[in-house]
Amino acid sequence: MKPLDLNLPTRAPLLPGGTWTSVPGTAVGVVAAGIKKPSAPPSRDDVAVLLAPGTAAALTTRSTAAAAPCRWTRARVPGPIQAVLVNSGNANASTGPQGEADVAESAAAVAETLGCAPEAVLVCSTGVIGVPLPRTRLFDGAREAAALARAGGHDGHRLARAILTTDLVAKEAACQVDGVRVGGVAKGSGMIHPNMATMLGFLAADVHAPAAAIQSLLTRVVDRTFNAISVDGDMSTNDTVILQCTGRGHEAVPGTPVWAALEAALESVCAHLARAIAADGEGATTLVEVVLQGTADDAAARAAARAVIRSPLLKSAIHGRDPNWGRIVGALGAAGVAGLEQLDLDLAGVPVLRGGRPVDWDEAAASAALDAREVRIAARLPGPGLGVAWGCDLSADYVKINADYRS
Amino acid sequence: MKPLDLNLPTRAPLLPGGTWTSVPGTAVGVVAAGIKKPSAPPSRDDVAVLLAPGTAAALTTRSTAAAAPCRWTRARVPGPIQAVLVNSGNANASTGPQGEADVAESAAAVAETLGCAPEAVLVCSTGVIGVPLPRTRLFDGAREAAALARAGGHDGHRLARAILTTDLVAKEAACQVDGVRVGGVAKGSGMIHPNMATMLGFLAADVHAPAAAIQSLLTRVVDRTFNAISVDGDMSTNDTVILQCTGRGHEAVPGTPVWAALEAALESVCAHLARAIAADGEGATTLVEVVLQGTADDAAARAAARAVIRSPLLKSAIHGRDPNWGRIVGALGAAGVAGLEQLDLDLAGVPVLRGGRPVDWDEAAASAALDAREVRIAARLPGPGLGVAWGCDLSADYVKINADYRS
Repeated sequence: MKPLDLNLPTRAPLLPGGTWTSVPGTAVGVVAAGIKKPSAPPSRDDVAVLLAPGTAAALTTRSTAAAAPCRWTRARVPGPIQAVLVNSGNANASTGPQGEADVAESAAAVAETLGCAPEAVLVCSTGVIGVPLPRTRLFDGAREAAALARAGGHDGHRLARAILTTDLVAKEAACQVDGVRVGGVAKGSGMIHPNMATMLGFLAADVHAPAAAIQSLLTRVVDRTFNAISVDGDMSTNDTVILQCTGRGHEAVPGTPVWAALEAALESVCAHLARAIAADGEGATTLVEVVLQGTADDAAARAAARAVIRSPLLKSAIHGRDPNWGRIVGALGAAGVAGLEQLDLDLAGVPVLRGGRPVDWDEAAASAALDAREVRIAARLPGPGLGVAWGCDLSADYVKINADYRS
Repeated sequence: MKPLDLNLPTRAPLLPGGTWTSVPGTAVGVVAAGIKKPSAPPSRDDVAVLLAPGTAAALTTRSTAAAAPCRWTRARVPGPIQAVLVNSGNANASTGPQGEADVAESAAAVAETLGCAPEAVLVCSTGVIGVPLPRTRLFDGAREAAALARAGGHDGHRLARAILTTDLVAKEAACQVDGVRVGGVAKGSGMIHPNMATMLGFLAADVHAPAAAIQSLLTRVVDRTFNAISVDGDMSTNDTVILQCTGRGHEAVPGTPVWAALEAALESVCAHLARAIAADGEGATTLVEVVLQGTADDAAARAAARAVIRSPLLKSAIHGRDPNWGRIVGALGAAGVAGLEQLDLDLAGVPVLRGGRPVDWDEAAASAALDAREVRIAARLPGPGLGVAWGCDLSADYVKINADYRS
């Protein structure tokens, strides 16, 4: 029996070695301000300023416990933005009115150095919750990083390492489509993160684009990429994705070929970063991709794919190379997906169900196929929708990392 | 600082050594029909008939992949019911039209032996998904178990062991309030279960009660008890809870003191069984109880308490005895709970937040307090609601059990 042939999305190729600063008109300054613990891997850098004067859009966590920097950022986008300040090592979450004041003062420190209004500076933090920021270190570091950025700054690779906490690898990418270039870096450690699953993503594009339009664009692309990663329900207090458009390069307006190029390049970069986050899951050995073709529309298909990727039962089975497809059917059923009596299902390229009925299969071959760096679960149901989600296996190491985080 | 003093529900005391057959007018037959693997602990018994002629109510999984026995059972309740047939070792799920036919034939086998209509027999299964039932063994076992039940049968302790799969301990309880007796047994292994989190619960009461009224009662009580256990989103294809009323004893009608006694006894038994399931979670070392007083109403408070108990990040922290209260705030925020700037929070009896702000605390003492068989997380917000949820810590053993299940 042949494996399923689904209509997978194609994506524009990445530029070799690309990163956030691959985009003309951007500069970054990175410093070690002493906010991270000295033992923190893989870099002691913990404060950065991302300079890209133009327009910006941002998406922040929907948590009602959103950290102070998220509340500051979401109040200022979409709009004209000069720079972004980011620190690792402290989340500035559950810190009350002092946390709010610290965000405003840190934005002012950057703004003073750059010669702009504090409202033109967005702020992001990641790290421990409920601990007041080391104010002086942060403000001094912010000023220093802003001055470095203004002077030409560092490359994006250093930025990519500075924002990491428990991540094992830096995540960076850039893509060019029809002369429009997009670059980005991200942090986040797969399924969930010890500091509340915090995911940060920074993107830049060398276009002149209206702020409101790029906000819609970012929302749409993030829903298909970063929002398709399993975070197991543990949405962070600090999740933030920011797109800065430099105001240079092509004029990008919705409905034009330039806009289509911008969207294609942005989606390619975001999809790469999202997959890289899933693959770097704590304790993970395998990237799991769920592709569901069917259901009423793309949104329903994405929701169902995410339900499968979240299942700890399935994640444990994949870790054990156990081709237990009943757990996939169970996850789809628990998510309320209709029409399962017609389900076609492949596990790691091995057909297991056609029209809802088990097919003859080689269980040992399926188990062997699960022993890979990447595994795809492909499902087909009636209906025009298409949804993709990414996650990772669940290992005993995941528990160890999260049980022992502060001890 | 004093710990929070919340309005916790009080429950009627249990009868020592009580079980399903503690209820007059019930009898059970249990056999080893060869459906379970020979290695299956702790009992090779795998088919039982629960005889309690009268009325019955049932709740079954809401999964769209519901197994054939669930679809059979839900079509027959509330109504006049003679007996329940249950097997362990095979879920009869994802088995197509043959699975439907097997359910009907197994009900007929019991009905023929008891001398009633097949429609007066409910059916439950738990075990592996996607494997056809061993028909002859099941039908022979069903007839034998029905005959044994009719002849006086076994005690409920044997029933409690027969329905187990990966559970470590049998779960049984009985309670008597104002002359009304309720008994029950349950299976389910805490957070999630290798065979798709299947939870089964069998309850009996020695009352004569209208079927429609006991269906409402069961729904209400299950929402406060079995539905308050963390199953991590992995709802089973086979979850079922059944209440059989024997038609003997007091006349129970809503609004009367007898009805209130029935509800109190039922809630006490169900709450005990639910806690026992959470405590027996795979790899679990600690029962976690979340009590939330506040939010708009009981339903909202229960939903928020369940969101906290589900968080793998928090479950991992409790396993590591890490009093990382930021993860509780994060889980409440991710669940969309409002008013967190006024949150009062105790962790294992140690005050950590008052009015949304961290209090001076002894972190080492809090860590020591987490090293217990039972831990309570108590939270207070503005509002009249009260919700309780039960779960367990997440250990590396959980992953091992679920990764290696079929290998």
